[in-house]
Amino acid sequence: MKNFSVKRERSNVKSRIALLIISLFTSHFSLIGQQATWIWYPGDYEIWLSNQMQNRRTDRGTFFPVFWKVDNHYVLMDFHKVFDLKEPEEVSIYAEGQYNVKLDGKPFEGTPTRITVPAGRHKINIKVFCQEYVPAIYVKGKTIVSDGTWLTTFEDKEWIDETGKTSDISATKWLNAGYWDFNEPRRPPSKFKLPVTPQKAVKKEVNNNSILVDFGKETFGFVKLHGLKGRGNLTIYYGESKEEALSKDGAVTIDRLLINNSIAKDSVMPLSKAFRYVNIVREGTVSFADVSMLYEYADIKDKGSFTCNDEEINNIYDIAKYTLHLSTREFFIDGIKRDRWVWSGDAYQSYLMNYYLMNDNRTVTSTMYALRGKDPVTGHINTIMDYTFYWFLGIYDYYLYSGDKSFIQQNYDRMKSLMDYVLGRRNQHGLLEGLPGDWIFIDWAAGLSKKGEVSFEQLLFARSLETMALCAGIVNDKEGASQYQSLATELRKKLFDVYWNEQKQALVHSRIDGKQTDNVTRYSNMFSIFFDYFTEQQKQAVKQSVLLNNNIQKITTPYMRFYELEALCAMGEQNYVLREMKDYWGGMLKLGATSFWEEYNPAKKGAEHYAMYGREFGKSLCHAWGASPIYLLGKYYLGIKPTSAGYTTYLVEPNLGGLQWMQGKVPTPKENIELYVSKEQIKIRGAAGTGTLRIKSKTQPTGKNISVTAKGNDLYEITLLPGVEYVVNYSATL
Amino acid sequence: MKNFSVKRERSNVKSRIALLIISLFTSHFSLIGQQATWIWYPGDYEIWLSNQMQNRRTDRGTFFPVFWKVDNHYVLMDFHKVFDLKEPEEVSIYAEGQYNVKLDGKPFEGTPTRITVPAGRHKINIKVFCQEYVPAIYVKGKTIVSDGTWLTTFEDKEWIDETGKTSDISATKWLNAGYWDFNEPRRPPSKFKLPVTPQKAVKKEVNNNSILVDFGKETFGFVKLHGLKGRGNLTIYYGESKEEALSKDGAVTIDRLLINNSIAKDSVMPLSKAFRYVNIVREGTVSFADVSMLYEYADIKDKGSFTCNDEEINNIYDIAKYTLHLSTREFFIDGIKRDRWVWSGDAYQSYLMNYYLMNDNRTVTSTMYALRGKDPVTGHINTIMDYTFYWFLGIYDYYLYSGDKSFIQQNYDRMKSLMDYVLGRRNQHGLLEGLPGDWIFIDWAAGLSKKGEVSFEQLLFARSLETMALCAGIVNDKEGASQYQSLATELRKKLFDVYWNEQKQALVHSRIDGKQTDNVTRYSNMFSIFFDYFTEQQKQAVKQSVLLNNNIQKITTPYMRFYELEALCAMGEQNYVLREMKDYWGGMLKLGATSFWEEYNPAKKGAEHYAMYGREFGKSLCHAWGASPIYLLGKYYLGIKPTSAGYTTYLVEPNLGGLQWMQGKVPTPKENIELYVSKEQIKIRGAAGTGTLRIKSKTQPTGKNISVTAKGNDLYEITLLPGVEYVVNYSATL
Repeated sequence: MKNFSVKRERSNVKSRIALLIISLFTSHFSLIGQQATWIWYPGDYEIWLSNQMQNRRTDRGTFFPVFWKVDNHYVLMDFHKVFDLKEPEEVSIYAEGQYNVKLDGKPFEGTPTRITVPAGRHKINIKVFCQEYVPAIYVKGKTIVSDGTWLTTFEDKEWIDETGKTSDISATKWLNAGYWDFNEPRRPPSKFKLPVTPQKAVKKEVNNNSILVDFGKETFGFVKLHGLKGRGNLTIYYGESKEEALSKDGAVTIDRLLINNSIAKDSVMPLSKAFRYVNIVREGTVSFADVSMLYEYADIKDKGSFTCNDEEINNIYDIAKYTLHLSTREFFIDGIKRDRWVWSGDAYQSYLMNYYLMNDNRTVTSTMYALRGKDPVTGHINTIMDYTFYWFLGIYDYYLYSGDKSFIQQNYDRMKSLMDYVLGRRNQHGLLEGLPGDWIFIDWAAGLSKKGEVSFEQLLFARSLETMALCAGIVNDKEGASQYQSLATELRKKLFDVYWNEQKQALVHSRIDGKQTDNVTRYSNMFSIFFDYFTEQQKQAVKQSVLLNNNIQKITTPYMRFYELEALCAMGEQNYVLREMKDYWGGMLKLGATSFWEEYNPAKKGAEHYAMYGREFGKSLCHAWGASPIYLLGKYYLGIKPTSAGYTTYLVEPNLGGLQWMQGKVPTPKENIELYVSKEQIKIRGAAGTGTLRIKSKTQPTGKNISVTAKGNDLYEITLLPGVEYVVNYSATL
Repeated sequence: MKNFSVKRERSNVKSRIALLIISLFTSHFSLIGQQATWIWYPGDYEIWLSNQMQNRRTDRGTFFPVFWKVDNHYVLMDFHKVFDLKEPEEVSIYAEGQYNVKLDGKPFEGTPTRITVPAGRHKINIKVFCQEYVPAIYVKGKTIVSDGTWLTTFEDKEWIDETGKTSDISATKWLNAGYWDFNEPRRPPSKFKLPVTPQKAVKKEVNNNSILVDFGKETFGFVKLHGLKGRGNLTIYYGESKEEALSKDGAVTIDRLLINNSIAKDSVMPLSKAFRYVNIVREGTVSFADVSMLYEYADIKDKGSFTCNDEEINNIYDIAKYTLHLSTREFFIDGIKRDRWVWSGDAYQSYLMNYYLMNDNRTVTSTMYALRGKDPVTGHINTIMDYTFYWFLGIYDYYLYSGDKSFIQQNYDRMKSLMDYVLGRRNQHGLLEGLPGDWIFIDWAAGLSKKGEVSFEQLLFARSLETMALCAGIVNDKEGASQYQSLATELRKKLFDVYWNEQKQALVHSRIDGKQTDNVTRYSNMFSIFFDYFTEQQKQAVKQSVLLNNNIQKITTPYMRFYELEALCAMGEQNYVLREMKDYWGGMLKLGATSFWEEYNPAKKGAEHYAMYGREFGKSLCHAWGASPIYLLGKYYLGIKPTSAGYTTYLVEPNLGGLQWMQGKVPTPKENIELYVSKEQIKIRGAAGTGTLRIKSKTQPTGKNISVTAKGNDLYEITLLPGVEYVVNYSATL
């Protein structure tokens, strides 16, 4: 906020108030000030970049694109801002595309790269056409800089009548420009690439005409062949497992090259891939001196952390971190071998983990822009009904964790039109069932019925409507807020009227032809716990009838394990969950996993683990949804979560879950909350906002800086103020 | 149709029937057969190309793009077709973009350029990603070729479940692929450019540091400087008039070059421009040996023609033809100096003229694709309410003149969503008035009110609803057809309830705050005549009260003169219109016009004629809407028009309008109708379809091949059969 105060001193009263309003309502405009950055139409760069990224998937050397509609950027864009100058200013202009520049509506001749703006109040417009890339500009003067305060539109509607008068453009919808951190004029958005760093193999096994290279752990990047020469074919078989790399017919990704080098030269593969092993098979006179790789990564630093007395849990946490980093790239993707795509349900979990590790807003909002695409909506996000809803839920959580309203303001129209699409697909009972083209996914689970009105979909639908009501309020759409709220209330009531079964003490899986099915699954029951849709009594009943009931079909994906364990944690079952974590994630580690898998079924043996989708090596061994311990340990063991948007207020409710001690950091929009917990002592430093430390203690807690409120039942609360360190001595009841 | 019969012999019964159906219902699929052609998603190439074209406009050397939303192509496209092969076939594949190829759902490894398709029934899918260009493919085997029978989609929704099963893709919307005539694999759509041919100047005036070059008439293309050398600035001032070329501050288009050639070389300007004159000003040591140009044109041949005994009319017809050809390029544009854009109201007139001259369906449909763009609709076409309606009217006429249903089938969804946009903007009375962002254009006319509910807009709205009803019927949307028809009926009734003024015997211009305004303008009155919305009595009244009434504001643009004269012709005033034509278009010729202008006001003098929009040379001197004599002479003098879609039936009702004789051709989808008319004899050769020759004669007509039906009031009708030549002797009543 330092730049902001500098700017405020220089500006006049009117813009001072405007800036003040912006600074009060959003944390998104921290670029305000003298930092020039490349700007574009919000979401367009993200859509363009995700197209580039998602189309890098190959399968057996064949291009493997997505199967849903992908959108394209607006090719013609107008940017403007009004400036008030004390003195004339020289301004440099850079653009991606063909452009013109206007000062107060009057164009400069040609395509100026440098203009002089006279003193006084002036409006600068820059209009850009670009087909191949997203139209973008970079403007830099002493005080005039391109940033997120510029306004932009794809239809300026500025016509000129027969007398030379220009039209009223009040009807044009202007949004704030989008930006990342491309602050160099010579490094425009279209040139962006993730950084790479060289890595060496840890082991090489040289055979007759092949070499098997082991990089020691799951990794991602570009294979580099050193001193490649000779003539003939060369094939690289990539493997997340040794078995995959050695399977010429089974390896999911391969590179086939025809070499014809009379002089030895280094060669880097054109596409980055996921692997631990590569098996390189050469023919003819082809030879090379060495193999290494360029590790490709998103340079995002960790803010959160977790350590405890249990080394297995520490290992699980570390491998989870690595798994999440590998699958956090330009966007949050599902897995690095396949699909390398942005899937809404997968990304939703990455958002949540991110809030406890990197807390990187940019990757969250970029992923949501990419997923949403543009109007018209012609299908569900990724074609999956549940994935549409996770997109809404992601916005709910993003606002809660970041406090950023600007993303909602910029996106509200797209939220509305996506919800219109959903509302338009309700049946005569106001419920959703799969229509042609809809994929009801829920989870990979054998025999799971997708027929009729599935309770899980209605549940996510209700939460999405609540999100719409919240966001309508934020953008001052009062009518919308009340409509969405009443739709949500009605649907939540219906959820229980239709699916709650008193005998089973559970929500049933579905209704077909107006009749409850007999089947109970975990999905809607576990979500209803942490959505707080159940009464306390229902929660306790469901815990026994569903969550801890071995007769209910088991979950075998880390994807739904995430929510299952969250539900149990939300009910105080941290001890049970800790054992489950050690069993499940620990189980993968015992099998040599160096990143967490797409699916894990302890009943399988050896290379059976690598099969999926009817393919021997179909499974992805590095899948973001495998990294959930990051989230569980941060939210339910360290026990830290925001209770109002952006951690203005938050709760710290630590639970050792059987551990001796634990310590860690949880990021907030401003600082980290730092916490150490043993059975006798808690040390904590609060971040901006007001926290509440809630603990169970057999005795009244004592300590430095604390003021204790007893809440009954051995429950005590201590208020945490920003930046203050607290040491609390207590006597844990668990 | 020759290719078709060859194909039919080779194919099996089932596809024979399919082909038969296609051949019965559309004339669009004449490419069926062995001719491979580049194919794409329908409309996408047209949108892409129009973006390229429209962004070539410059003004004083400054890039001058449009001010409305322009759309972008889908970047990811799936194409497929099922083939039934008697024997295996080798197939070559070309694509614009990255692609994969599947046979019966199974991908080939890599990016095959040649595949073998085994005998039997097989489905070929090709999926293409391309950002810079429109994804397009070209496939060529012995019988397997890419053409308009392939299906295409932007969302195939083909997902694979955990057992490896693919999804039901019945929900995917497939359209027939789009194509032009790009039949060479090595000349893909993205490389398309209009042809050019060299042309020489007719006069050069060398001055001190400049040279004024006259190309003899309005032209369009790239200026070429021969033997350019030396060092310094060189500026080319383009002029449609000599005055403009000589006005360094006023010339609308210029090229500024910095020359640094030690060796003389030829230099062609990068952008094509409109001009008759160029004034080239050099500085420093710059010199050149000669100036010529490359004339750029759309290579579309004339099919229609008109000549008569009046040389002035023949001149008008010839200049109109040249005007229309100059402004018929990749698309029908408004004018060649400016705007060089595709404007719906302007294009609508070009469509109509086209039916009487080139009869080129491709340019009509491409222009309509480009204008419509894509969903969502965020504004009127070109921002103008009337221009949205002309788009609908254009479809009505296109179907009538071409009989092509496929364009309607491919476009019906976009027609519906555009009409939804319009319907959503009605006021509480069900009428349209300008909302923020709407441009109510009607015409360039001083002081023309655009306030309130303007009658002209409701009239076009009614006709558009009728078009929707017609097209809904064609695509078998029965519910839509009846809804649109009842909306149209209701609106037509309202038009008379609200605007007809008994005292004035005319439709008034508008209603403001529920009250008829006092003003009567020509627009809605003249359209109601040829839309046949008036009773015969109203027509006669309006002719006197409005059309021939000098107290009603005069029309000064050829744009609305088009409809004014059409209305008069529709009422049999060909003699009056002929005099008006000679006055108005003849007036421009007398002022030295070599193409017809955007606007002509006989009251102005000298270079005053070149001013418009508050600019000295703002007016365009070659504007498509100036070419209407082509239409009037074909439709109302030769008197030929279709009476059912595609000239299945048509009417020939010649009217000499004071001429001694006239002869000409009018194209139909299959052949030309050829006609000679004097006051004593008519010679005619009918095209496919059944025609009716209707003539007024003082005596019973006689002649070769004819069978005459008397209709009373000296009116006689003769049936015309395809390809037969008729000679009719009669005694004209006029």
